[in-house]
Amino acid sequence: MIHHKVTIIGSGPAAHTAAIYLARAEMKPTLYEGMMANGIAAGGQLTTTTDIENFPGFPESLSGSELMERMRKQSAKFGTNIITETVSKVDLSSKPFRLWTEFNEDAEPVTTDAIILATGASAKRMHLPGEETYWQQGISACAVCDGAVPIFRNKPLAVIGGGDSACEEAEFLTKYASKVYILVRKDHFRASVIMQRRIEKNPNIIVLFNTVALEAKGDGKLLNMLRIKNTKSNVENDLEVNGLFYAIGHSPATDIVKGQVDEEETGYIKTVPGSSLTSVPGFFAAGDVQDSRYRQAVTSAGSGCIAALDAERYLSAQE
Amino acid sequence: MIHHKVTIIGSGPAAHTAAIYLARAEMKPTLYEGMMANGIAAGGQLTTTTDIENFPGFPESLSGSELMERMRKQSAKFGTNIITETVSKVDLSSKPFRLWTEFNEDAEPVTTDAIILATGASAKRMHLPGEETYWQQGISACAVCDGAVPIFRNKPLAVIGGGDSACEEAEFLTKYASKVYILVRKDHFRASVIMQRRIEKNPNIIVLFNTVALEAKGDGKLLNMLRIKNTKSNVENDLEVNGLFYAIGHSPATDIVKGQVDEEETGYIKTVPGSSLTSVPGFFAAGDVQDSRYRQAVTSAGSGCIAALDAERYLSAQE
Repeated sequence: MIHHKVTIIGSGPAAHTAAIYLARAEMKPTLYEGMMANGIAAGGQLTTTTDIENFPGFPESLSGSELMERMRKQSAKFGTNIITETVSKVDLSSKPFRLWTEFNEDAEPVTTDAIILATGASAKRMHLPGEETYWQQGISACAVCDGAVPIFRNKPLAVIGGGDSACEEAEFLTKYASKVYILVRKDHFRASVIMQRRIEKNPNIIVLFNTVALEAKGDGKLLNMLRIKNTKSNVENDLEVNGLFYAIGHSPATDIVKGQVDEEETGYIKTVPGSSLTSVPGFFAAGDVQDSRYRQAVTSAGSGCIAALDAERYLSAQE
Repeated sequence: MIHHKVTIIGSGPAAHTAAIYLARAEMKPTLYEGMMANGIAAGGQLTTTTDIENFPGFPESLSGSELMERMRKQSAKFGTNIITETVSKVDLSSKPFRLWTEFNEDAEPVTTDAIILATGASAKRMHLPGEETYWQQGISACAVCDGAVPIFRNKPLAVIGGGDSACEEAEFLTKYASKVYILVRKDHFRASVIMQRRIEKNPNIIVLFNTVALEAKGDGKLLNMLRIKNTKSNVENDLEVNGLFYAIGHSPATDIVKGQVDEEETGYIKTVPGSSLTSVPGFFAAGDVQDSRYRQAVTSAGSGCIAALDAERYLSAQE
């Protein structure tokens, strides 16, 4: 029977910052980085982005993969036991907690005294034709992260979505774009009234109700066109845009603990605000899996550190 | 009359991460980094530490000053207006807020629509003879930050303080030290009973009640001795220790807003947990000035990002 004192599930900034802190505190953490967990390579969402300009400490900017390789190296340097397997099942009902990895669900479980869940959240996608080609080559799901890059400057951009976050993303993008279209599937917004008023007043935002995207098109390297259709008139046409931002929500990767720990209505793990404490003592959550509001690499890293210090205090108190 | 849209006061990881995010969001932030504000050079507490091993993304570790220079360069790269002056007076009573810098308190104020206070907190020191010589050469105020460095490994260490944080630091240090002395000025702990029980049960912790430190001694480069005195018997002796950790509290740098915004009993700025929102709309707090629990460079950086996104949303809603 394999037993770990503290187990970290995830491979992004939250997971590796927690590992760096716990390993340096001689807690010998085990980190399951996953094998294409949730369809994403080890390193998490950042491995699907190109340049990162806003992680503090890197004025010359670097790629998402490079930042995550550096963090992984740092975790390993201090003694983190990194396992490239996907945790597919967790049992929080009794202590020690039990967990199983993919394809070993019928084998003997691994046991552990504490778990930090840092499995992140992935942006919901449309799976449009052309999406794979132009992902991060014009298509993004984070205006704060990517809006400032040169390819979007003074260019027409489009946002897909009808809620507050679609309106917030569109408003944020008007800082960079020549104009911003919002494609809303229905004939009305779901967004709050106050947010709708702000959109209506903004001369650089054009709202297209009853409109869906059919295809992302471009020159093979960068996006420059969006095929759209009006669902009332069935008329299709090409919209010249150099950027497409999905604002149709994120899915926090919480399946393995579904029903075992309190969640927000939005499916995110519920934590005591400003900490990593969840409804289950000894089970901590860090990064995007418990953050639907800020969702940045550096807020995840900060949250991973918080989880490490919370877990270290919890485990010290158990001894 | 000088007016800034958003002003950041501070120069550590929280201040510069907020600046990076706000500058990249085209908000043209102004950052007052201070001229030896609170007796600390621009860059904050990190400029007083040596190597930083646990800021994620730097497996090869780097000095505190180097990390802060990199962050400052990043802020400036995106257009932050950095002013090397100390803000000595702030008026939050009406909008726009008003602020004055040192030696210009009688001049016309600068006005600003939003402020992010990120002035940090400084560890209370003893000002012992020898402290300046051996600061960060054996003397520290953060076991999580510095306990793991080689000079403390398997060596006797001392902690000064009688509260929960002194007990937590001592317990944390037993991971590295051969033994840990706790010097408690009074004849009893202020710490919680549960924490005292843990200390009593720990064979590697020796508590010296009624004991004060008189002098930090060493070989000119590294600490290796502490002159101590028992205040009951007045007996003095030399205690062989290679590390001394102050755990007598931190002072959050909040003087410039004293009485104008809600504070915790401990003097830290009160924020809505998990955010940077304070009791005054448009006035945000980030980093150690509002965090008495975690106090790490990376939690401050995450908090600075949160403050930038909170401020950007607040200012967008005002337009």
